[in-house]
Amino acid sequence: MYRTKTNGELRLENAGEVVTLAGWVQRTRKMGGMTFVDLRDRYGITQIVFNNDVDAELCERANKLGREYVIQVKGTVAERSSKNPKMATGDIEIIASELNVLSPSLTPPFTIEDNTDGGDDLRMKYRYLDLRRSCVRKNLELRHQMAILIRNFLDSKNFIEVETPILIGSTPEGARDFVVPSRMNPGQFYALPQSPQTLKQLLMVAGFDRYFQIAKCFRDEDLRADRQPEFTQIDCEMSFVDQDDVLEIFEEMARMLFKKIRNVDLPEKLQQMTWAEAMRRFGSDKPDLRFGMEFVELMDVMKKGKFSVFDDAAYIGGICVPGCASYTRKQLDQLTDFVKRPQVGAKGLVYVKYNADGTVKSSVDKFYSKEDLAELKAKMGANDGDLVLILSGDNANKTRVQLCSLRLEMGDRLGLRDKNVFKCLWIIDFPLFEWSDEEQRLMATHHPFTMPNPDDIPLLDEHPERVRAKAYDFVCNGIEVGGGSLRIHDTNLQDKMFKILGFTEERAQAQFGFLMNAFKYGAPPHAGLAFGFDRFVSILAGLDSIRDCIAFPKNNSGRDVMLDAPGTLEPKQLEELCLKIDEDRVKGETEQQ
Amino acid sequence: MYRTKTNGELRLENAGEVVTLAGWVQRTRKMGGMTFVDLRDRYGITQIVFNNDVDAELCERANKLGREYVIQVKGTVAERSSKNPKMATGDIEIIASELNVLSPSLTPPFTIEDNTDGGDDLRMKYRYLDLRRSCVRKNLELRHQMAILIRNFLDSKNFIEVETPILIGSTPEGARDFVVPSRMNPGQFYALPQSPQTLKQLLMVAGFDRYFQIAKCFRDEDLRADRQPEFTQIDCEMSFVDQDDVLEIFEEMARMLFKKIRNVDLPEKLQQMTWAEAMRRFGSDKPDLRFGMEFVELMDVMKKGKFSVFDDAAYIGGICVPGCASYTRKQLDQLTDFVKRPQVGAKGLVYVKYNADGTVKSSVDKFYSKEDLAELKAKMGANDGDLVLILSGDNANKTRVQLCSLRLEMGDRLGLRDKNVFKCLWIIDFPLFEWSDEEQRLMATHHPFTMPNPDDIPLLDEHPERVRAKAYDFVCNGIEVGGGSLRIHDTNLQDKMFKILGFTEERAQAQFGFLMNAFKYGAPPHAGLAFGFDRFVSILAGLDSIRDCIAFPKNNSGRDVMLDAPGTLEPKQLEELCLKIDEDRVKGETEQQ
Repeated sequence: MYRTKTNGELRLENAGEVVTLAGWVQRTRKMGGMTFVDLRDRYGITQIVFNNDVDAELCERANKLGREYVIQVKGTVAERSSKNPKMATGDIEIIASELNVLSPSLTPPFTIEDNTDGGDDLRMKYRYLDLRRSCVRKNLELRHQMAILIRNFLDSKNFIEVETPILIGSTPEGARDFVVPSRMNPGQFYALPQSPQTLKQLLMVAGFDRYFQIAKCFRDEDLRADRQPEFTQIDCEMSFVDQDDVLEIFEEMARMLFKKIRNVDLPEKLQQMTWAEAMRRFGSDKPDLRFGMEFVELMDVMKKGKFSVFDDAAYIGGICVPGCASYTRKQLDQLTDFVKRPQVGAKGLVYVKYNADGTVKSSVDKFYSKEDLAELKAKMGANDGDLVLILSGDNANKTRVQLCSLRLEMGDRLGLRDKNVFKCLWIIDFPLFEWSDEEQRLMATHHPFTMPNPDDIPLLDEHPERVRAKAYDFVCNGIEVGGGSLRIHDTNLQDKMFKILGFTEERAQAQFGFLMNAFKYGAPPHAGLAFGFDRFVSILAGLDSIRDCIAFPKNNSGRDVMLDAPGTLEPKQLEELCLKIDEDRVKGETEQQ
Repeated sequence: MYRTKTNGELRLENAGEVVTLAGWVQRTRKMGGMTFVDLRDRYGITQIVFNNDVDAELCERANKLGREYVIQVKGTVAERSSKNPKMATGDIEIIASELNVLSPSLTPPFTIEDNTDGGDDLRMKYRYLDLRRSCVRKNLELRHQMAILIRNFLDSKNFIEVETPILIGSTPEGARDFVVPSRMNPGQFYALPQSPQTLKQLLMVAGFDRYFQIAKCFRDEDLRADRQPEFTQIDCEMSFVDQDDVLEIFEEMARMLFKKIRNVDLPEKLQQMTWAEAMRRFGSDKPDLRFGMEFVELMDVMKKGKFSVFDDAAYIGGICVPGCASYTRKQLDQLTDFVKRPQVGAKGLVYVKYNADGTVKSSVDKFYSKEDLAELKAKMGANDGDLVLILSGDNANKTRVQLCSLRLEMGDRLGLRDKNVFKCLWIIDFPLFEWSDEEQRLMATHHPFTMPNPDDIPLLDEHPERVRAKAYDFVCNGIEVGGGSLRIHDTNLQDKMFKILGFTEERAQAQFGFLMNAFKYGAPPHAGLAFGFDRFVSILAGLDSIRDCIAFPKNNSGRDVMLDAPGTLEPKQLEELCLKIDEDRVKGETEQQ
């Protein structure tokens, strides 16, 4: 037997017991005639003592242990003279009588501590060492715990977890598919699912009533900072339900998770905000409600024929930043630079400082009178000492999105985005379609199966852009954690949707024929929702990046640097798949990068 | 609200309640002035009654309902005059007052009943209708239930479920990988995991101590009757354990599952049989212990210089089939044909009928005396009325495997392989290597990371074929449900293994360098096991094929006929991946098929 106890469980009441422990050497120290070894495993750290006076040979061997050696120790539990109240095992130590090196270790390339000296790249290459750090391991333990809680919750609500296939058909709509050549069907390809969307709808047609799956999903997209080519979704679908039924059950699930994981009580009923209201008040479909600084629309106050930038604007909006009238010229220039960054895209920033001494200083002093700025102050609800920041533009929603970036930046600067505060809400009534500048056509905001709001169906033909969807997002702290919709279960309405989206009948049939056909055999009304599991874990763990809660993440080029994947294939593998690599194109692509 | 109750929950005590139900029309009947509709959902069937005398218009609409229409019905729960004790809701019916068709249905291509008239192909094409049949849906409910039980069991034992990546590197050893071209790394490919084997070992190096995952695995192999290109494994790994620790914990898990799912008590401690014993007694590393007919080795009894076939044989073995001396010439010829089938591969079959009247009749009467056959009878422990069947050959284990096929055939014929009887055991002490005729070299019986039995390590250099592995299989009713091993955690021993397996140092480094490197930083002793989840479910569900417990299985050509996948890609997709299809080869392959 390698161990009789783990390194996390011994307490004062075990004193006198003879135990065998095993684990990794966290560190060794020599003090007086003693050698102390901190022995680590997943469960904790236990101090081992080797006494030179009692067994010099044993102590000598302990002195030779290096960091991260795997050892086995037999000894007697004893009360410590100097206790360590910070450690669960801090009241005791083990007086060692036997030592066995199970596996030596080279010196690790970085320290195995919460504050490691290893950089990102090194830690990714040696991810198996990075995972030894308890701050990293704890994220994965939390992930496991959340998955168990979610599964048992959904099971208790009659949901069945069904595994849907990973090798499915390619539907070149939306994001890019990863594809898999089929050897048995030469020249043909499977695709990896971007989500089990159509399959879960088929399960509703099959009468499964309540389905869920913690499902791997795949998108071959250019990876932004916090995206992964494979990610995990809590994917759910229900039959014979309306929007409120769905929101209620997943609100209950979220409430359970926040309570059990963070001991945070979400309100009895979460706020529901329409997309239009969220855009108007926060310039975002995922507003961060941890702080105020709501938008104030300033068209009436600022359009006075005095300042042509505002006079020509389709939208003028401001936020009132409390206590920041003391901002220096330099600080204000930084803010102007911030909003002008390509990621934000504003042309400029207007500020008005309502100083604590009652004076006013603004970047538009030469255009507006004192009375104008007093009117603005009243409209903004600003107090002396506050800073008002104003953006304008010729597209209302684009300007709002810019103002949103500024609001979040100010929230960060004022420390108002506390990771231990959680503000959740539902965003509802999304537009069914959005205009794509790139494709020059209407696109489905969510996906083509989303149910229009029944009240808006008369608008479908003439004003599709005004049609609201029966769609909803679960938002926490400015992050979209989940989203879903009621689905169309009527073949005629679905046909109409495809027509508005510019699908030819042939294309709709080729891509979604199996689903359209299924709906002809008695489809129940159904609705669903998917949470981004990586995102959900990272929020509850207080992490900045989803990468930190993924065991083996990929880097921004989609590479697993530990496994050194992807890699080249042997010629035989390509032959069997009837594939050739277009080397000219590879060369071209590689040079571009 | 679409429904206030499901179709499975109303009982006599609900009589008088006004309820709303929704579901699928199972069937309609007209009787007297009434129309009866059986309304179905996942939870059950409830009888709805429409009374022509009370509301002729409503009844007329009910008469027009077709099979599989989705409807909503409001009505009053009433006690039935003729109760149906076979149905949970058989005491009541609903006197309908409102009817709403939510979704009509075309006539389904087969009947939605346990005994359907649909053939395999049709049911696969319309899998969403096949899944409506309660016998199919129940398998998936059982699968979900097993997954929940397994996860909660392993969680209670301190196992953490960790999701390992699906996009990994290709290791062209063992079965063929499915590969995924990487657009961001032109000319390079990911592979889908055949199992998370190396990743779970890295998690042990990372100190995760106890890991599990219900994991999707992928093998691009030619599909035999009961294989799928993607399948699911209960994948587990533990640190600081020996073989008995592993067997104990998974025996407990199996005991829990058999009890909770089938109310079957497995014995307190499962039998452990060495691979050598299993081969000797049953000719199989996965013996079916539901019945006897153990092998009797007959070298001493039959080698008498009388019958050259036996005299030249390296192995002669027999089974005694109780009560089958009455087999006719035709039946015996069938058995001879059976053993001569290429799948079995024997050259012929010797039988000896010990008739009930004391006479003896055999296919070797001209070679052996009465006394010889009496000696055989004693050796076989045969009684009057029994049939002895004998095979021989020049390779002992090959002949045993043939005799195993015959034994199982006789078990089937005699109805001794009852699906409601479960005989589980562990097979241990597998050979570490097996000789591959195809590759003309030793191959790892399990995989190259399997620990040799420490007692046999001295044999590694001279007699590797005699080295036993620290490997174990969980076998139930003649089916390998799970298997695993202790792993090598010592870099030198691993190097030696690769050498014996004929890996060059470069190749070992290229394929498994990341693992070998990880072992240099303090690897704990570790061991693991994986159950075939599809197989485990199918055994507990009493199914013949794993397909029946998979929501959307693929056919023998690896096709999903419902989704019509795999399919061709658009030229743009291939271009982005820097790939060309080798059309000549496609043509060649397609013609071959």
